[in-house]
Amino acid sequence: MRTIFWEDGVKLIDQTRLPDELTILHCRNVEELTDAIKRLAIRGAPALEAAGAYGITLAAHEKNFGSVEEAMEHIKRRAELLASTRPTAVNLFRGINRVLNVAIKAGSVKELRELTLKEAEAIAEEDIQRNKLIGSFGAKLLEDGDSILTICNTGSLATVEWGTALGVIRSAVQEGKNIRVFACETRPLNQGSRLTVWELMNDGIDVTLIADSMAGIVMQKGMVDKVIAGADRIVRDGVFNKIGTYTLAVLAKEHGLPFFIAAPVTTFDWEKSGKDVTIEERSREELLYCHVKCRQSLIAPENTKVFNPAFDFTPLEYVTALITERGVVFPPYSENVPKILK
Amino acid sequence: MRTIFWEDGVKLIDQTRLPDELTILHCRNVEELTDAIKRLAIRGAPALEAAGAYGITLAAHEKNFGSVEEAMEHIKRRAELLASTRPTAVNLFRGINRVLNVAIKAGSVKELRELTLKEAEAIAEEDIQRNKLIGSFGAKLLEDGDSILTICNTGSLATVEWGTALGVIRSAVQEGKNIRVFACETRPLNQGSRLTVWELMNDGIDVTLIADSMAGIVMQKGMVDKVIAGADRIVRDGVFNKIGTYTLAVLAKEHGLPFFIAAPVTTFDWEKSGKDVTIEERSREELLYCHVKCRQSLIAPENTKVFNPAFDFTPLEYVTALITERGVVFPPYSENVPKILK
Repeated sequence: MRTIFWEDGVKLIDQTRLPDELTILHCRNVEELTDAIKRLAIRGAPALEAAGAYGITLAAHEKNFGSVEEAMEHIKRRAELLASTRPTAVNLFRGINRVLNVAIKAGSVKELRELTLKEAEAIAEEDIQRNKLIGSFGAKLLEDGDSILTICNTGSLATVEWGTALGVIRSAVQEGKNIRVFACETRPLNQGSRLTVWELMNDGIDVTLIADSMAGIVMQKGMVDKVIAGADRIVRDGVFNKIGTYTLAVLAKEHGLPFFIAAPVTTFDWEKSGKDVTIEERSREELLYCHVKCRQSLIAPENTKVFNPAFDFTPLEYVTALITERGVVFPPYSENVPKILK
Repeated sequence: MRTIFWEDGVKLIDQTRLPDELTILHCRNVEELTDAIKRLAIRGAPALEAAGAYGITLAAHEKNFGSVEEAMEHIKRRAELLASTRPTAVNLFRGINRVLNVAIKAGSVKELRELTLKEAEAIAEEDIQRNKLIGSFGAKLLEDGDSILTICNTGSLATVEWGTALGVIRSAVQEGKNIRVFACETRPLNQGSRLTVWELMNDGIDVTLIADSMAGIVMQKGMVDKVIAGADRIVRDGVFNKIGTYTLAVLAKEHGLPFFIAAPVTTFDWEKSGKDVTIEERSREELLYCHVKCRQSLIAPENTKVFNPAFDFTPLEYVTALITERGVVFPPYSENVPKILK
């Protein structure tokens, strides 16, 4: 299942409408795409890289430009708009910049459009291939009969296709291993219950939904063998990922369970450390209502004060291994990560 | 604010309607009360003790009995019905049994009604006094300026009045201490966001709502000094409490924070150990919809497999102290708990 593609503009699966309905959203201009990114109709670090890339292509098609210089001026303004949507998403900026770097080589508006589209398509295709590699490297860490705990959505819907952490599970199942999954619902936006459960059920993979607060009991009762999460950004001292990941890492340590992070090397921002990154805080409404679509029943008093960070930071000491498309990296990370980033 | 009282039947605050509206539910027969208990219109261990007690009183008023023997036969059947509603709630059984033990002394139907009502009222009044004592003992553990993390609702709404863990916070504030509270929303039924936030805001106590998955980040960032939770049942090796409590205990240990349990001695079931207690599993619908009242938006595919335990077990090694109405108990618990239970 392809999450984002080009067809007379950018088309993407509207993930806010899942699991109720599978709707393809057609973004005909950059505003529509930035709106889709902001309201998480498309999310997940690798999918956002493709969204950034296709967004620049879209900017190049948005108007009838008089000259390539005029088009470039326009594209640069649109790039800023796109980049402002998700301040923690390094992959989004990477997708934007890679297509921008190709765009500047264009000698005509026609060529600009061709080059940007070709580059965006290449980025999407590379993502699919990368995910398959992450999957096959990671699958070696899973044993037949394993029960895996995961958080958020790191599957096809988080990428262009296949997935990172879910891609590992998918590859293990494809290899014939019997794998059972526990999916944290992942409040406040329930990407786990809405997307991960939906994807795994579609694939016929055994999945059980739990509330985030149940991660402790499933480990304590021995119902889980390993934890696999994705990453939004990996810096030299830790991993930024969906809020709740750090709690799972602490629980995994306490129960002696392996805690794996699966992510492409594009997610690494190894020059930076945790303190350099600002964690995005999202709107209070996400905690006052229980579903982005359902504004009828308040689950907290209307004027409640809320702390709603979208991500948390898991120090690398908690991470058993990093699964990338260039192989599995074990500690010491300060020594071994630079080798795969070369 | 009184959660449950007698007035021509049992009247109670319907907690499933909070925070939208404050509704008093009038239960005129035991079926209506058992229904209210089952759908958590009233919940919380101490409040359930009063509910069990008033339930027996209600049974004694339900029919025009020909004789006291006929009435007792009826009451015993109703007691079984009441006790079957929440299999983990030891306090519910205690409330039922205490009134039953008084009922058997009655020589007439009139006396039966008087004795059962008097005993139920005494149970409710004792709960209020107990909570005030828990509060004043526990408040000594809180310092001016403390930030406290809590889970579920352990306030007035969980008891007859005042509260256990929230009662400790309330007492500390009453003593003039400046206390800030972080409330976990407490999925799946959101007793934290719906009830705890509502109660604390009513009292003018500084409260910030977080998703359960954010407990890790608030501790990691030093935003929390102490954790206080309630208990549904305390056995000789651990505490049964709302699902998610164990995760908070593990996180508190990892961050070197005190982890307190506040509960009346009626919650202790010291002859038993963790393995003797069956943890109630609740319906899958609680995880498929985001609010008991809102059945419009599925947040997971309809046929999702769910694991939904209502409670978890926190081994006593994680507990810094137990706050009771007879004082604060520190480890070693095997030595110190029996002293206060005498």
